[in-house]
Amino acid sequence: MKINLYLLLLGILLGTTVAQSQPPRGPFVISPKVNSDKTVTFSYLAPNAKTVLLGGSQFGQADVPLTKNAEGVWSVTVGPIKPDIYPYSFKVDGVTVMDPANVAFFPNERFKASLVEIPSDEPAIYALKNVPHGSITYEYYPSVEGSTGTVVVYTPAGYTKETAKKYPVYYLISGTTDTEETFWKVGKVNLMLDNMIAAGTAKPMIVVMPYGNPLAKIAEQTGKDKPADVMSRDGDDALRRMKLFETDLVAHVIPYIEKNYRTINNRDNRAIGGFSRGGGQTLRTAFNNVDKFAYVCSYASYISPAEMDKSFTNITSNPDKTNKDFKLLWSGIGTDDFLYKGTVEFEDYLKAKKINFKSYVTDGGHTWMNVKKYLNETLPVLFK
Amino acid sequence: MKINLYLLLLGILLGTTVAQSQPPRGPFVISPKVNSDKTVTFSYLAPNAKTVLLGGSQFGQADVPLTKNAEGVWSVTVGPIKPDIYPYSFKVDGVTVMDPANVAFFPNERFKASLVEIPSDEPAIYALKNVPHGSITYEYYPSVEGSTGTVVVYTPAGYTKETAKKYPVYYLISGTTDTEETFWKVGKVNLMLDNMIAAGTAKPMIVVMPYGNPLAKIAEQTGKDKPADVMSRDGDDALRRMKLFETDLVAHVIPYIEKNYRTINNRDNRAIGGFSRGGGQTLRTAFNNVDKFAYVCSYASYISPAEMDKSFTNITSNPDKTNKDFKLLWSGIGTDDFLYKGTVEFEDYLKAKKINFKSYVTDGGHTWMNVKKYLNETLPVLFK
Repeated sequence: MKINLYLLLLGILLGTTVAQSQPPRGPFVISPKVNSDKTVTFSYLAPNAKTVLLGGSQFGQADVPLTKNAEGVWSVTVGPIKPDIYPYSFKVDGVTVMDPANVAFFPNERFKASLVEIPSDEPAIYALKNVPHGSITYEYYPSVEGSTGTVVVYTPAGYTKETAKKYPVYYLISGTTDTEETFWKVGKVNLMLDNMIAAGTAKPMIVVMPYGNPLAKIAEQTGKDKPADVMSRDGDDALRRMKLFETDLVAHVIPYIEKNYRTINNRDNRAIGGFSRGGGQTLRTAFNNVDKFAYVCSYASYISPAEMDKSFTNITSNPDKTNKDFKLLWSGIGTDDFLYKGTVEFEDYLKAKKINFKSYVTDGGHTWMNVKKYLNETLPVLFK
Repeated sequence: MKINLYLLLLGILLGTTVAQSQPPRGPFVISPKVNSDKTVTFSYLAPNAKTVLLGGSQFGQADVPLTKNAEGVWSVTVGPIKPDIYPYSFKVDGVTVMDPANVAFFPNERFKASLVEIPSDEPAIYALKNVPHGSITYEYYPSVEGSTGTVVVYTPAGYTKETAKKYPVYYLISGTTDTEETFWKVGKVNLMLDNMIAAGTAKPMIVVMPYGNPLAKIAEQTGKDKPADVMSRDGDDALRRMKLFETDLVAHVIPYIEKNYRTINNRDNRAIGGFSRGGGQTLRTAFNNVDKFAYVCSYASYISPAEMDKSFTNITSNPDKTNKDFKLLWSGIGTDDFLYKGTVEFEDYLKAKKINFKSYVTDGGHTWMNVKKYLNETLPVLFK
């Protein structure tokens, strides 16, 4: 009866009859199940599947086969796994799918992955703890070319009840095909700041998380075709996107935030940072707008020496001024990151030009596990 | 080069090598593409798939086959489709998947579906228009049994800049396995209110969207196994969940909201409503807390005559009082809804007991397309 009602509801919610909706679900699947020994049991109901693999997992080897029980539930237990938050997916007969039993997902425009958190014995800095919590707010604002933009804003605990106190602002930009949701739903920047502010290790601040590709919003809202491959990092398309983002941030997002939030409006109280493409947008926007940002954090990104020579002599021609201007120029990278080599070249270039910066090198690759490490290093030193 | 970089980034983001990540993607797929004639073209890249169907679609027949081109991109054009927002998914060799190229998704704990909006010539009441926009805020609050709850709050345009103005509050509860995100990401209650408030047809109000199944949060945070089948509507489990929700709302959510937001704190300025399970929680919570809510909206839900006789004689024994207490008791249902018969019985029961209520019957089933119709009927009459 329960299952029938479930199927019926599911079928009708999905706009199909039960028969049409999907194979009978049978048992109520719990997945993932994090066990006390830090192993994790993943389960997927697919009575008719031939193979089910655990794919896209950053723990253990990828593509671990699941085994099917009499009820048609495939499962596998992996680990123990190092405590962290990991993306994963299933490959069912070769098709990559999110875990239907898991509501935690990775917001991204081009792939679908679920998220599993393995808690550590001593709660991690990004864990949900019993401390005062800030809020996450989604705003619509007037963006480039008449479009309506979306931006996500973290305000620290107590913000809503105060009426006068003003805060510094960290503009934090996510990676290619990530969305304005990724830095809090995957990066947990809100919980990290809740914990750091409660511990007195980070200054109370507002974090503004813009959407990195306003060109797509314009296309969406004007009904124009979406621009081709958003992944390109060079060519006119990439440059137009980069410039459009900078225009959106400086001419639309910042004025909107400073009009609607209690912000301290000067360069010493504005920081900018980002991951991957967002890091490239960070460096270019900061170097083009030295009057606006005193703190600059590049998470796994760089600008090539050639582009630096071509476009940013304003930064390199007078290192003394640049070193005074930037209270922090921070660059973090993982040794397994596919952008490691380019980042090292960038840092060597800055050294040669006598530009001060702080370098942080860790193990691991181009992952959000590493982004949390970069946040853990940089959030405590902003606005100090 | 672009594709290689994309694959590499995707692979590494997902924590697998390129080879492991998934079949080569080839072209950059745009899906869905809403055409000017209101047909929609759905595309999915799967060079190795044997069959790809458009499943879970509420437009046209379900399970429309897609056809594969030379590049391995499957696609189909359907419609013209009646303007609305619809859930859909693909069935790739029998496996139900979200559209990887579409970031718009249906927040739900038990199934994955993407969303497509077909705009109407005269923008719909739920469309994103060029009007002042309210904000959506995610809050953490101290919930039942020491757990930390999550709740989503809509505040109307201008709220953040005012310091004194107070607002009535609509507590709005989503359906079984929906989340606290569903009423804005699928139901678009925020955009509907933005448009109605701008047009002067609805009163400016705060909307509070709680998570409907606090028992799951407790399990999640205590590491206990999640409770079995959350779909059950009867039995001790269902009753415990129902009671726990009511306790959470009345003893935790409302006090938290009234402490942190500028609310008018009396029954005439509190409304409660919900869809499906959330409608059942609405009716039971309202009937158990007549002192708290003057406006009650049931979207596709009911209480059985047997349960009414057993548990809610406080409502039926003195109809004159009840009819004074509730400024609005509203019940909406679709003729194709699997809860239609039970809703009609409930309404007949109320009639027989001389309890005033407003009935709204529409075509269609147990869908969020109908939920938007119910919101369109009820939002304008709240707090008037």
